[in-house]
Amino acid sequence: MTRIALDAMGGDYAPKQVVVGAVEAAVGIPDVKIYLVGRKDAIDKVVAALAKDRKALYSSAVSKGLLEVVDAPDQVEMDEVPVDAVRRKKDCSINVAMRLVKDGTADVFVSAGNSGAVATSAILNLGRIKGVKRPAIAMVLPTKKPSRPLLLLDAGANMDCHPEWLVQFAIMGNVYSKTVLRRESPAVGLLSIGTEDCKGNELIHETYPLLKNTDGINFVGNIEGHDICGGEIDVAVADGFVGNVVLKTVESVAHAIGGWLKTELKKSLFRKICALMLKGAFNSLKKQMDPEVYGGAPLLGVPGNVIITHGNSTHKAIFYAVKAGVAAATNDVSGLIEKSIAEHAEKAQETQQ
Amino acid sequence: MTRIALDAMGGDYAPKQVVVGAVEAAVGIPDVKIYLVGRKDAIDKVVAALAKDRKALYSSAVSKGLLEVVDAPDQVEMDEVPVDAVRRKKDCSINVAMRLVKDGTADVFVSAGNSGAVATSAILNLGRIKGVKRPAIAMVLPTKKPSRPLLLLDAGANMDCHPEWLVQFAIMGNVYSKTVLRRESPAVGLLSIGTEDCKGNELIHETYPLLKNTDGINFVGNIEGHDICGGEIDVAVADGFVGNVVLKTVESVAHAIGGWLKTELKKSLFRKICALMLKGAFNSLKKQMDPEVYGGAPLLGVPGNVIITHGNSTHKAIFYAVKAGVAAATNDVSGLIEKSIAEHAEKAQETQQ
Repeated sequence: MTRIALDAMGGDYAPKQVVVGAVEAAVGIPDVKIYLVGRKDAIDKVVAALAKDRKALYSSAVSKGLLEVVDAPDQVEMDEVPVDAVRRKKDCSINVAMRLVKDGTADVFVSAGNSGAVATSAILNLGRIKGVKRPAIAMVLPTKKPSRPLLLLDAGANMDCHPEWLVQFAIMGNVYSKTVLRRESPAVGLLSIGTEDCKGNELIHETYPLLKNTDGINFVGNIEGHDICGGEIDVAVADGFVGNVVLKTVESVAHAIGGWLKTELKKSLFRKICALMLKGAFNSLKKQMDPEVYGGAPLLGVPGNVIITHGNSTHKAIFYAVKAGVAAATNDVSGLIEKSIAEHAEKAQETQQ
Repeated sequence: MTRIALDAMGGDYAPKQVVVGAVEAAVGIPDVKIYLVGRKDAIDKVVAALAKDRKALYSSAVSKGLLEVVDAPDQVEMDEVPVDAVRRKKDCSINVAMRLVKDGTADVFVSAGNSGAVATSAILNLGRIKGVKRPAIAMVLPTKKPSRPLLLLDAGANMDCHPEWLVQFAIMGNVYSKTVLRRESPAVGLLSIGTEDCKGNELIHETYPLLKNTDGINFVGNIEGHDICGGEIDVAVADGFVGNVVLKTVESVAHAIGGWLKTELKKSLFRKICALMLKGAFNSLKKQMDPEVYGGAPLLGVPGNVIITHGNSTHKAIFYAVKAGVAAATNDVSGLIEKSIAEHAEKAQETQQ
């Protein structure tokens, strides 16, 4: 059984969408128990207002012990800076949920809250895996090849990065790609402006030789923006500024193209009818691009399974984020990262001697 | 009449696609004269192998004085680093074409060659506009709103940037957006990881207050990847590393979605037939996303109109790059940039006193 500490108060549509997602995950994912962490009164209010069938599912999940509300009395206000709030408010939902992981009550933390606040709370409460300089947010993105998504990290936790941090991102991403995404020998690329060794900025120039000399990862060299959806790379390493900009650009382009397509297909009655006949194709396309399905992003480098999902997550995104958390926990991602980081440190020391 | 110095040897499909594009531009764009610059023997060979109707168009353009071949005897070999080659080979096509602009024979330079080599040749031969620290490549990208494309700069000329360079990118992008893209008061954004002032890396933190205090531009603050195709921003300012990654990511996503759509629409005979009936809609969508139409990127900050287009440009991309060059020349973009940079320098000095 994987136990999930789910932040009920995080995200634009919290607590409602989180509560619904929690019910769906508790009922729909085998061997999962959800701790729904937030202000009890707010959660009760949402539950009371649920549609009849959902309320029944909720009650059933609670009575079977698959769902349990954990009160987190502190509230982060709209005008607070989230990162400051988690430092000040010990009993806000993010901190209470994170402590459930720390004390062993839960195996996984999931939140649609502010990613900076989650990362801060994770480091404050859980610390870092021994040897890890900076935890990184890893994001799974769809590519041309449906069976080969790309893991992009760091997607926003660290701004001005040192080359050594990027090397660790590569090592951690390699573990996640192998275990959760089932790539045998993940192709790891350093995101730059061209594939030649000489291309890039100072950070890339300094990181490239370090990655080239890192044993145990299949470093394929510099990659470029064209490779993001190309389906030939498994792990793209970038600093958190570049990674975050790329991630949001991908979403922006997908959204724009979806919009153009819709506009075109509505331009005449004839087109509307043809489009209706192709509904299956468009739905399948939409699913392939859906950030809610890909949205559960692990924070790699902390001793515990911490999953961050989009601020605008609906219940569906919450469901998939819980799924991502289960995958991380059952594969013991953080344990394997600890082992891999230690091995690399040992090898680096041997080389120095 | 706008006179174009077109590098016949630049790009993956040169000289053939460039020659065809040159003919189409000379015939199809009013008041244009094309100097086709490259190894005369190579160009002659392509012309000899042209289809009958195209050959007739070529001959007609030449006889009307709309097209003229200019020999550039030096050849850049496949194994040469392009940036080094333009320094060493004085008479390679890029340098010969650039000198036509320098000596006033041509108004515009166009090339599908290596962008670094073009930028190097431009700076070597033309120099920089007085006061400009670093010329930048500006790229026009489609957004949700067909009438409001985004100008992204720098798209790859400068890697590790100083805040002052980014301010100048904003000033130059503002001029281009106003004159060529016809935006009355372009919304200028600084590409970061969120819209709040505090978001971003060191470069963003240092650049933000400078842009905020720059008169004469409509600085709307930090923007994020989501804004790239959002249609609310006219000029996105970034360092050349981030800009280049974003540009190529946009292309990668568009390409992947196009591929998924094609796959879905070919999954059954029924879908194929429906898709055929929607051909007009899909063609229109494809056109909106076509990098060849948007591909002519001006190098802003050099005293002359220098247009760089994609390495994989076909004749269509060459045609649109010539068009972009005509727009830049008839609007005197480089003259207006010189004026705007001088005004800002003057104001900055006044403030200091």
